[in-house]
Amino acid sequence: MTSHLLSVDSLSRERVEHLLRVARRVEPIAQRRQITRVLEGAVLGNLFFEASTRTRVSFNAAFCRLGGSVCDTTGFTFSSMAKGESLYDTSRVMSGYVDAIVMRHPEQGSVSEFAQATNVPVINGGDGPGEHPSQALLDLYTIDKEFSRLGKSLAGAHLLLTGDLKFGRTVHSLIKLLSLFDPMHITLVSPPGLEMPDHLIDLVVSRGHRIEQRQSLASDFRDLDVIYTTRIQKERFTEEMSENFTGVSREFIVDRAFMNRHCAQDTIVMHPLPRDSRPEANDLDPDLNGDPRLAIFRQTDNGIPIRMAIFATLLGVEELIERDRRDVRWFVPEKIGVDDADC
Amino acid sequence: MTSHLLSVDSLSRERVEHLLRVARRVEPIAQRRQITRVLEGAVLGNLFFEASTRTRVSFNAAFCRLGGSVCDTTGFTFSSMAKGESLYDTSRVMSGYVDAIVMRHPEQGSVSEFAQATNVPVINGGDGPGEHPSQALLDLYTIDKEFSRLGKSLAGAHLLLTGDLKFGRTVHSLIKLLSLFDPMHITLVSPPGLEMPDHLIDLVVSRGHRIEQRQSLASDFRDLDVIYTTRIQKERFTEEMSENFTGVSREFIVDRAFMNRHCAQDTIVMHPLPRDSRPEANDLDPDLNGDPRLAIFRQTDNGIPIRMAIFATLLGVEELIERDRRDVRWFVPEKIGVDDADC
Amino acid sequence: MTSHLLSVDSLSRERVEHLLRVARRVEPIAQRRQITRVLEGAVLGNLFFEASTRTRVSFNAAFCRLGGSVCDTTGFTFSSMAKGESLYDTSRVMSGYVDAIVMRHPEQGSVSEFAQATNVPVINGGDGPGEHPSQALLDLYTIDKEFSRLGKSLAGAHLLLTGDLKFGRTVHSLIKLLSLFDPMHITLVSPPGLEMPDHLIDLVVSRGHRIEQRQSLASDFRDLDVIYTTRIQKERFTEEMSENFTGVSREFIVDRAFMNRHCAQDTIVMHPLPRDSRPEANDLDPDLNGDPRLAIFRQTDNGIPIRMAIFATLLGVEELIERDRRDVRWFVPEKIGVDDADC
Repeated sequence: MTSHLLSVDSLSRERVEHLLRVARRVEPIAQRRQITRVLEGAVLGNLFFEASTRTRVSFNAAFCRLGGSVCDTTGFTFSSMAKGESLYDTSRVMSGYVDAIVMRHPEQGSVSEFAQATNVPVINGGDGPGEHPSQALLDLYTIDKEFSRLGKSLAGAHLLLTGDLKFGRTVHSLIKLLSLFDPMHITLVSPPGLEMPDHLIDLVVSRGHRIEQRQSLASDFRDLDVIYTTRIQKERFTEEMSENFTGVSREFIVDRAFMNRHCAQDTIVMHPLPRDSRPEANDLDPDLNGDPRLAIFRQTDNGIPIRMAIFATLLGVEELIERDRRDVRWFVPEKIGVDDADC
Repeated sequence: MTSHLLSVDSLSRERVEHLLRVARRVEPIAQRRQITRVLEGAVLGNLFFEASTRTRVSFNAAFCRLGGSVCDTTGFTFSSMAKGESLYDTSRVMSGYVDAIVMRHPEQGSVSEFAQATNVPVINGGDGPGEHPSQALLDLYTIDKEFSRLGKSLAGAHLLLTGDLKFGRTVHSLIKLLSLFDPMHITLVSPPGLEMPDHLIDLVVSRGHRIEQRQSLASDFRDLDVIYTTRIQKERFTEEMSENFTGVSREFIVDRAFMNRHCAQDTIVMHPLPRDSRPEANDLDPDLNGDPRLAIFRQTDNGIPIRMAIFATLLGVEELIERDRRDVRWFVPEKIGVDDADC
Repeated sequence: MTSHLLSVDSLSRERVEHLLRVARRVEPIAQRRQITRVLEGAVLGNLFFEASTRTRVSFNAAFCRLGGSVCDTTGFTFSSMAKGESLYDTSRVMSGYVDAIVMRHPEQGSVSEFAQATNVPVINGGDGPGEHPSQALLDLYTIDKEFSRLGKSLAGAHLLLTGDLKFGRTVHSLIKLLSLFDPMHITLVSPPGLEMPDHLIDLVVSRGHRIEQRQSLASDFRDLDVIYTTRIQKERFTEEMSENFTGVSREFIVDRAFMNRHCAQDTIVMHPLPRDSRPEANDLDPDLNGDPRLAIFRQTDNGIPIRMAIFATLLGVEELIERDRRDVRWFVPEKIGVDDADC
């Protein structure tokens, strides 16, 4: 039976834990200390019907790191679809060419429809307001990896999710994944009108977690383990919302001052990126750049091992990687970014 | 002497038969049971000045399956050409970078002009209303392979070509290729105004084949071996034709009812794809999906072995593939499409 | 310490000579007589925010020839940047995915800003009116290689630079590189208003070279060793200049007649390409095609060994290539272009 990766809803705790385990095992390759060629000869179809350079390059690089080749398709139009071709036909045709397919599409549900026609593994790279499961997995992997390093565990942790909790699909998928694990304490803070949907809160509570909703970041917090911030997704607002939206007030900003007031030395700050660095955006503040608590670039780096794990498990090569690896011979900087902290 | 693949007109029966033979030999690789690396280190320039995701990905994947790397160029503009660069210069420059070139271009004759400047093999991936020889070869390969499976032979076969026979360049190229072989019986049916051009009919008849023209599919047929359907190429209509065109009437549709009335259990249905699945298009009907006679996805799958054969012969490595192959280690589904028939 | 390649200003004569040496060593691979796999497993991020098919394919192919994989990004928009992402964030994120980055961008200074955030090697592939150092290096490499073949040396050579010397950034970078070497004689000829900027002339003179400025090509020249012609960069003109520009008069054209009047049998003609072959453009004349003195295609071919040398030195694998090479097994034409001269 073929597996796809279409939604976090279909993931069991066991499958998630297996993915995280494989991701840990491929870290030396993701970090360019070793190479593997287990997928030599395989071809990935990387179909991006919506622009997302970051996600596209991450999937592309992850497949290359496993030894495979990638064929990218980008742009808002797909020539055959413009001629009336069904998703069914497109899916079956592409499946004859490649060994795995990543698809990003502006319409919710389109990736699932595409996957229904094929036995070649399909990975949802984001379907509009719908799902983006690899992002949720890399977020969870980041929390798990950072907690490992800090000697913490998920059980009983206190996480703050803030920003646009209504349209931010990454926080929706992340909270579903977190809910599979032992009880934790999750605080939600968002500007008025951008609250987390009730059905998600109900789901998480029903699984034994404690959810707390606050009106502002200008309040008292117990020490936080994780702060997960998100960009305001103005492009998904209704027309009415856009007209009435006057921006995010300063009281929702996570910056160095907030961190010093509410957080410990081992609180980590996450963000799915891109963050809006224009001053009026009041997104996660760049004044935290270089602070070891800022985990956003370690988080994006984790896209590589997680996506390698996704490919390796869907294509059934995760056990082969142990035996097929050798050392990298080219120059790799000790720190990727000039401001990367030691941690 | 360098060879290009610019037109089916330049192909002898011997060269065609050699290509089909090589395609058969690379099937285990095309079907992902084995890999080869004979073209490791080689680079393909895949130049698409006109959008065609399907064809581009097929050439790309075929080159990768031989072990090579691919550099894609897509989009309607080519930056240097916009600055007044000649095709001669573009061709010579690209030839210094890559080992083979696939070119698709909206203007008829442009690919041949491009090829005149270079000794690097150039493959015509479609030049507007002109040629698309790899499509004709994969069509012929499909007929040959299906006939093999069914214990039939080309000699004496009855083929029905239907749809837009005036602008459908794939049927023009296919009928030329077929005409190189032993006499067969070819029936042509198209909506008024979209008939096969006379010079092609004359050519085929002059080579000993029997051509029959009918007004509609609502007539009597002897058992057919192959039904080759095509999409109406409205984008190539003259302005006058577009104004007068009121759509294709139902009497030109190939669907399950037609198949049951006129065809045997071993008649195959082909289509160059994309097919227009919008109900008003009256293209090949999706009600045949899952029917083993529907060969359209086996046909598109055949693009990989045929294009591998084209690359392998132009680059002179077809004999090396036998010795340079090993088994695939990743998961490959038994059937590519969920509706693929056993056959 | 990480090195980038951002500008020719940062290059010492020693580093330039090392690059040329490595380029010579990789020639058998660049010319497709051998392959190497030293960068197998490495991934290049080829980020083109401005269209330049020629440069993009050249970098792509050079990285592939070293055994690496390439992930291209093309187009004028970058989806994350449109959402307010800083160059700092984009740089750090991409650096987590790939092992080297080539970036082309329409804004001067953007590539340097991008490079400041990362320890992954960044190569400037052209930043608007700014720098394009790999072009200058391949130009210098061409002169050096042609002089080697002809038994000439740089010291004391007579070079003519002509065309748009004001906006042609390639001549700016080239003249800076040349100025690092022993004294030579450089003649400058450009249409009125398109003269070489004074600060560059001052720099070159201060390093001991002789600069001569002429009004027209219709004058007396001593035998020239190199003629470097350039296209008029109308796209960089100010509005006022565009309005007043009436085209280049015939007296600035380098063609066969000019060559026969002023040049020896061993004078070489260069051009950074693309050249504008429309008759009214009065760019380098196609009547020289096939003339062995026309070095423009040997020059563009040299983009591969130079870019291989750039990658190999930045990634520290230049010493490994000697031991990691094997013969090419596919067909390679003796001459790349149909008109290539024996030389």
